[in-house]
Amino acid sequence: MRHGISLLPDCRRDRRSAADYYRDVLALTRFADRAGIDYVKMTEHYLGEYGGYCPSPLTFLAAAAAQTTDIRLMTGATLPAFHHPIQLAAHISMVDALSEGRLDVGLGRAWLPYEFEALGVPIDESRPRFEATTRAMLRLWTEENVTEDTPFFSYRDATSLPPVTQSPHPPLWGAAVRSPESFTWLGEHGLGVMLALAPLKKDVGVSRYVINLYRDAFTPGDGGHAAPRIALSTPLYVARTDDEAYRAAEPLYREYMAVWSEAAASWKTTTSDQYAGYDQMGAHARHLTDFDVRRHGTAVIGSPGTVAERILALREEYGVDTFLWQVDFGGQNLDQMQASLRLYVDEVLPRL
Amino acid sequence: MRHGISLLPDCRRDRRSAADYYRDVLALTRFADRAGIDYVKMTEHYLGEYGGYCPSPLTFLAAAAAQTTDIRLMTGATLPAFHHPIQLAAHISMVDALSEGRLDVGLGRAWLPYEFEALGVPIDESRPRFEATTRAMLRLWTEENVTEDTPFFSYRDATSLPPVTQSPHPPLWGAAVRSPESFTWLGEHGLGVMLALAPLKKDVGVSRYVINLYRDAFTPGDGGHAAPRIALSTPLYVARTDDEAYRAAEPLYREYMAVWSEAAASWKTTTSDQYAGYDQMGAHARHLTDFDVRRHGTAVIGSPGTVAERILALREEYGVDTFLWQVDFGGQNLDQMQASLRLYVDEVLPRL
Repeated sequence: MRHGISLLPDCRRDRRSAADYYRDVLALTRFADRAGIDYVKMTEHYLGEYGGYCPSPLTFLAAAAAQTTDIRLMTGATLPAFHHPIQLAAHISMVDALSEGRLDVGLGRAWLPYEFEALGVPIDESRPRFEATTRAMLRLWTEENVTEDTPFFSYRDATSLPPVTQSPHPPLWGAAVRSPESFTWLGEHGLGVMLALAPLKKDVGVSRYVINLYRDAFTPGDGGHAAPRIALSTPLYVARTDDEAYRAAEPLYREYMAVWSEAAASWKTTTSDQYAGYDQMGAHARHLTDFDVRRHGTAVIGSPGTVAERILALREEYGVDTFLWQVDFGGQNLDQMQASLRLYVDEVLPRL
Repeated sequence: MRHGISLLPDCRRDRRSAADYYRDVLALTRFADRAGIDYVKMTEHYLGEYGGYCPSPLTFLAAAAAQTTDIRLMTGATLPAFHHPIQLAAHISMVDALSEGRLDVGLGRAWLPYEFEALGVPIDESRPRFEATTRAMLRLWTEENVTEDTPFFSYRDATSLPPVTQSPHPPLWGAAVRSPESFTWLGEHGLGVMLALAPLKKDVGVSRYVINLYRDAFTPGDGGHAAPRIALSTPLYVARTDDEAYRAAEPLYREYMAVWSEAAASWKTTTSDQYAGYDQMGAHARHLTDFDVRRHGTAVIGSPGTVAERILALREEYGVDTFLWQVDFGGQNLDQMQASLRLYVDEVLPRL
């Protein structure tokens, strides 16, 4: 079982500056590195307070690499549809070099309508763009004089620099939530799955279904994994007792869900047959800010004993081999994040 | 007078890996930071060995910021024509936050035909794209709910995140070589000039002419500078004696010019009325690898006394207030770079 921290800034811009956020998460990353945590993961978003402080996970990971020695750096996710393959492939191999081969690359299709609109990318093209750009990057990392002619980009005789540090390229993961096509594609191409659970337990049947699609489709291939890999991202908060954990985490988690809901609300005015079920999220989202975290949520919150039990159950239920814990939700400061992560390292890990 | 180091990887891929290059230039940057050097600058290029190891100066600078406390981080240049303004503006403000307000932004129009071709950007549009993207970024840093409708990008009600750390935004510079329109535009908008001299002294008359255009046009404005600023980038090599300096630097400089020539050779098959004179560079370039560095070059190479004299002359001749020394040319390793920079700090600076 492997363990990581998963970062997604959700700070309110008038309450917590990006300089404060980055100072704190870099300190937490140094702590995680010294504590033997396996991964630090960072996401890519634009414009909204849901992740918008980090338009470039690769850039954050370059800073994280510069202050650590062992922890692996993971994008989760970077979004190929919003980049030219020559630029993204080179940016990835640059950070692979800066980190001396410590990079894992999580790729996502993107899902927020306002990001597609602002960047001028048709949301209905997200899947072919994701697939074409990912395939093109794989060729740029492993071939010379590559020629492409696609509806989205074209070039002749391109040889990407710098060469990747890891061979044949950094391990690849695909972020996916619920679209069956995504899980099948990830399995067919041999990528790892970077899974986000639906926030309510009643929806997790979808997750089990799509994970099985992935396992059935899995073929070792371009992704760089010999066997299926399931990494789960979900919020974590550990305190001495369950009550103490819920008292501290509940307002933070509600705040996170409020920020998420504002982002997801852009589905209220968007429909795309490429995102089945997503247009319900706006309606869903308005209620989620009021739901009872303790009874219905999928966040992992509690005492070390409770958290260890939940982890073993999640491993059993979904075959999760890697836990990527969201530790910065609700605009937490360093003291909160570090107290929870220290308990995880000192008192949860020994129980697993 | 201010002083910086200016980085542009020109390593041969089969001779020096990107991991080695970055390990060395990060060590040099830490040395420069401790020695009180004002700036570290990094460039953006693609595909060729001329700079292609660094597709993202912002990402390198994030790593540099994570290992330093005082030195200012400078892009030189990042290339607006190759980015969407929402992505580049956000990436810049992210690094401004990561460095706690230590970022300077040098912007360039780009000039290598093979980069435009591979990225699908028409080279004849480089000026309007540069100007439109730069103007759009200025609005994104200083306004909310920005709407743009241009031939190159369009969006409605965009509010950029994260907010910039410096107010109103990081100081801006424009990289320019010889196009009069570029120097006039930089002056009219109040940006600093990031100047590269032609490699042969006989061509420097062009530089004096365009610098005067810039000074005459200068109006304090969007760029964030109260008065004209002239930063010069040129190769530097200091050793105990002139002879020792030339013996060490000449093969390195020849190697740099060879890599540069291969890049510039892509002008042999390209003409653009937007780049007057550039189509001569291919022909020029073939000869430059054989020219006599000592007699005709504009690189600053010599003993501490010789170098100090050249610096005072350059200040006099062009009104240079900031020297951004190319210290990594020819695939130098850390020992060479650091020996030269140490002499600069210990024995050149006290003479100025």
